[in-house]
This record gives sequence, structure tokens and C-alpha cells, in this order.
Amino acid sequence: MISLKEAQEKINEAILKQSFKNNPKELYEPIEYIMSIGGKRLRPAMTLLACNMFTDNIELAIKPALGLEIFHNFTLLHDDIMDQADLRRNQATVHKKWNQNIAILSGDAMCIKAYEYLIECKPEILPELLKTFNKTALQVCEGQQYDMNFERTDEVTVEDYLEMIELKTSVLLAASLKIGAIVGGANEHDAKELYRFGKSLGMAFQLQDDMLDVYGDTLYFGKKIGGDILANKKTFMLINALSMAKGDLSIELNYLLNAKDIDPEEKIKKVTNIYDNLGVRSLAEKKIEDFFNLAERSLEKVSVEFEKKNELRSVLEMLGKRVR
Amino acid sequence: MISLKEAQEKINEAILKQSFKNNPKELYEPIEYIMSIGGKRLRPAMTLLACNMFTDNIELAIKPALGLEIFHNFTLLHDDIMDQADLRRNQATVHKKWNQNIAILSGDAMCIKAYEYLIECKPEILPELLKTFNKTALQVCEGQQYDMNFERTDEVTVEDYLEMIELKTSVLLAASLKIGAIVGGANEHDAKELYRFGKSLGMAFQLQDDMLDVYGDTLYFGKKIGGDILANKKTFMLINALSMAKGDLSIELNYLLNAKDIDPEEKIKKVTNIYDNLGVRSLAEKKIEDFFNLAERSLEKVSVEFEKKNELRSVLEMLGKRVR
Repeated sequence: MISLKEAQEKINEAILKQSFKNNPKELYEPIEYIMSIGGKRLRPAMTLLACNMFTDNIELAIKPALGLEIFHNFTLLHDDIMDQADLRRNQATVHKKWNQNIAILSGDAMCIKAYEYLIECKPEILPELLKTFNKTALQVCEGQQYDMNFERTDEVTVEDYLEMIELKTSVLLAASLKIGAIVGGANEHDAKELYRFGKSLGMAFQLQDDMLDVYGDTLYFGKKIGGDILANKKTFMLINALSMAKGDLSIELNYLLNAKDIDPEEKIKKVTNIYDNLGVRSLAEKKIEDFFNLAERSLEKVSVEFEKKNELRSVLEMLGKRVR
Repeated sequence: MISLKEAQEKINEAILKQSFKNNPKELYEPIEYIMSIGGKRLRPAMTLLACNMFTDNIELAIKPALGLEIFHNFTLLHDDIMDQADLRRNQATVHKKWNQNIAILSGDAMCIKAYEYLIECKPEILPELLKTFNKTALQVCEGQQYDMNFERTDEVTVEDYLEMIELKTSVLLAASLKIGAIVGGANEHDAKELYRFGKSLGMAFQLQDDMLDVYGDTLYFGKKIGGDILANKKTFMLINALSMAKGDLSIELNYLLNAKDIDPEEKIKKVTNIYDNLGVRSLAEKKIEDFFNLAERSLEKVSVEFEKKNELRSVLEMLGKRVR
């Protein structure tokens, strides 16, 4: 059984071995670039781990796993255009380094390349693998659209938000596990439970991100604390605070969201105080724990020996510790 | 055997029966819109005709054919963003009717939807069908990139241009025929010859478009004459003229290309005169005829009875008449 870390290294090695270079270079260089600037490789690593639960021959899963990573990076590339983001993983985004048209078109080529890699599997599993992937890929687009819609409305409920992050983030992690399971020869039941495992894990992971933006340790979390607060981003934290705050607290929160020339540090501090007052942190912690528990239960239901689940169990444990 | 017209009607009926509507509506309404505003449905119709050469059961080919049409419309949608075009088929383009982000994302969803339709075929032909499609889809992206590159350079040779239109236009027509053949149960040899037939036909068709922009009949051609000339578009006509013009003719042509406040009608007339002087028209006619002949020869090599080729033969004849 390989570990998460070994799986991530295997994926990084495999990416290094691929050559995305081709002509015209304006189309292919951005693909080489975005695939080379890093990332956790969580999705394709999960594909390998899921595959490894059912077979020792994880080489079978490398190409489909790369397909999932290429697809993920394609969505980042196009999202960055839509969000007008300048940086991705501390490097210039493709539309900044080249231009917008090149970013649109090389993204399109990546979406097609994702399929090129994905279909490198045994022909008999192709229909199910593609059905899973197509559905998921569309859901990721739906999630991105909801996310953009949310920026332009004040009426986002917690349920809306959870549905959005499920689509935008969780289903691709879920599908990565399911596809690994299918490639490894899992039966339908096990593939489904691993899908559920991934979905719950993805939800917990995203909600952790939301919470760590407020309560995380900059050094450990790797991002600057309070970024979501400064951007008025409708996270699990803010949506809950907006729905719970009454009277003066509601007035103050709305003032902070609309204040134009407030000192950033002050805004972060005051919004965090409101979250503290309302108990938003424990609400988030509870929700995250719920999702970790759901993931654990799905994993239990997978019908392989206890030891075969060790790796995914330690992934759960490791990610669970991110909160503390 | 169904005719081209019947095949086009069948595709239009099938498109009407699909519902692309779903939530979020911002993502799916543009898909419904672009699929409903018409087009010749040439690619999917060719898929049906090719399939029909090998089986009477053309229903088999409807979904893959729709996949090809969805993919084609996806490329138009994204090309229109890149070209900043306001109109497509005399209707507002998606990025104009909605906005750019919606156009990027709904295009992405269409690319995925194309696969969703394409894979609705017998599982045993899936690997070959997808291999053909993936390769073609990437080539279409390459063609679009070359086309954009050509706008920013003066050094485009006739060979460069022919390679670009082969990628941007011809290979998708070629693949539409090949995929129809595969679905219909054709052997490798016949599928390949139909691919070649489609590629040559696509080249002839695009070169006709280039020539009809100068020498066409507005009423019959359906577009305003001289549009390419006014836009200094590097077509087969202009690239040949630029390489052939010497002395005063070269000076005049370059003056016309750079003149800022010249009367449009005058520019069209004078550039056309230069084309006449240089014999660019007969050069184009010769090239178009060559490609029609190549297409005819590929069709001859397809190993089905003479009568089964009647429809594609009349397509050749009908398109051949566009020039006159």
C-alpha cells in the first residue's frame, strides 16, 4: 500500500515525464506552465490510493489520475480569467503571463487533453468512467456559476452555500476516488461509498479553509489570514454570521462590510470579534466534524480488509488535525 | 438512403427535442440559445450520411452527431469571445447577450456536453471514436491559435494558410464523416477514406468561402461581399496576391491595406482589380477543383456499392456549383 505522500510524489514524477509541449507554442506552453507550478496533487493522489485498495497494480490508474489533475488545472485556469486573478500558487496566472485569448484557448485544449488521458484505461470500464467524469465535470461548471452568482446577491443561505461548494469542490474529489476504484476493479457498491467518502472529505476540507482564513495560523495554513474577510467573501463563516446577527451586531457587521476606508487589520479584528460573539467558529467546527464523521462511515462501508483502508484513514486523521 | 437535406432536418428535429435547460440558468441558457439560432448542421448531417452508407439504422448516429454539432458550436462561442464578434448568424453572440464570464463557462460546459452525447454509442467502438475525436478537437484549437497568430504577422505563406484552415475547419468535417462511418460499422480502410473525403471537402469549402467573399453573389452567398477585404483578412486570395504582386501593384496593394480613410466600396473594387490582374481567382478555382477531385477520389475508394455513395456524390456536386 502506498501512502498519500508517495502517491503525490508518483503523480509529480508522472507529470514531469509528460511533455505537453507542441506547436503552436502559444497553445501548449501555458499547459506545460500551469501543470508545472505545483499544487497538492490531492485529486490524482486520491485516485491512486483508491485504486490501490483493490489492486497492487496502481500503474493502471496513473493516466486517468493525470486526466483528473489536468481537468482540475483547466478549471483553475479559466476560473482565474473569470475572477481576474493575477496570481495562482504565487506565480502569474496564464492570462496575465500571456493574454486572455491564449488563456481561454489553452484552457479549452486542456479540457480535451484531460479526456485524452482519462480514456487510457481498459476499454470495458470506459463507459462507466466517462459517465462519472462527464457528470462531475458539468457539476464543477455549475458550482463555478453559482459561486459567481453569489457575488451579486445578498440572499445566499447556508444551504445554497453548501450546495455550491459541493459542486465546485467536493464532487471532483469524490469522482477522483470513484474513478480510482473503478480502475482498480471495485464493485459498484464500493465505488459509490468511496465517492461518498470523497464528497464528505471535500466538504470538510473546504469548510476548514473557510474557518482557517479566520482562525488559522498563517505559517501553518500557508495563506494570509483574513483574506476572505477583506474581500467580503461569502464563506460559511460570513453567511452564518449574517443570518444570526441581530440588532447592533447586525448593524456593525453590515457597516464593516460596506466601510470603504477602514484599516484592513481593524476590519479583520472586528469581524472576527463578531464571529466570536455569535459562535460561528463552533458552528463551523461542528459542521466540519459532521463531514469527517460521514466520510469515516462511508469508508467503513467499503468491503475490503481493514488494513487496505489504512491510508485513507490516515488522510482523514491528518486533515482532521488541520483545524487544531 | 437519406439525402443531405433530410439529414439536416433530422438533426434539427433532434436538437429541438433536446433540453439543454438546467440550473443554474446562467450556465445552461446560453447553450440552449446558441444551439437554437441555426447553422447549416453540415457536420452532424455528414455523420448521418456516412453512417447510412454502412447501415440503415442511422438512429445509432444521432447522439454522436449531436455531440459533434455541440462541439462545433462550443468552438464558435469561444472564438467569438476571442474575436470580439458582436454577431453570430445575425444574432447577438453569447458574450454580448450575457457577458464574457458566462460565455467562457457555458462554452466549457458545452465542451463537456459534447462528450456526453458523443459517447452514446456501442461501447466497443468507444475507444476508436474517442481517439478520433480527441485528436480532432485538439487540432481545432491549434487551428484557432494559428489563425490568431496570423493576424499579428506579415509572413504567412500559402502553405501556412492551408495548414491553418485544415486544422481549424477541415478536420472536424473529416472526423464527422469518420465517426459516422465507425458508428455504422465501417472497416478501418473505409473510415479512413471518408475522413480524407471530408478533409478535402472542407478545404474546398473554405477556399470557396474565401473566393466568394470577393467574387460571390451577395444574394446567393448570404454574406456581404468584400468583408474579408475590408478586414484585411489573410485569406487564400490576399496571401497569394501579396506574394505575387511586384512593383507598382505591390505598392498599391500595400497602400490599400494600410489606408485609413478610404471609401469601403473603393477599397473592395481596387483590391478586386489587383486580384484580377494577378489571376488570383483562377488560382483559387484551380485549388478548389483540386480538392474536389481529391474528395471524389477518396469517395471512389470506399468499398461500398456505387449507389450507396450517391448522396455524398451529390453533396460534392452541389458544393461544386457554389462557385459559379
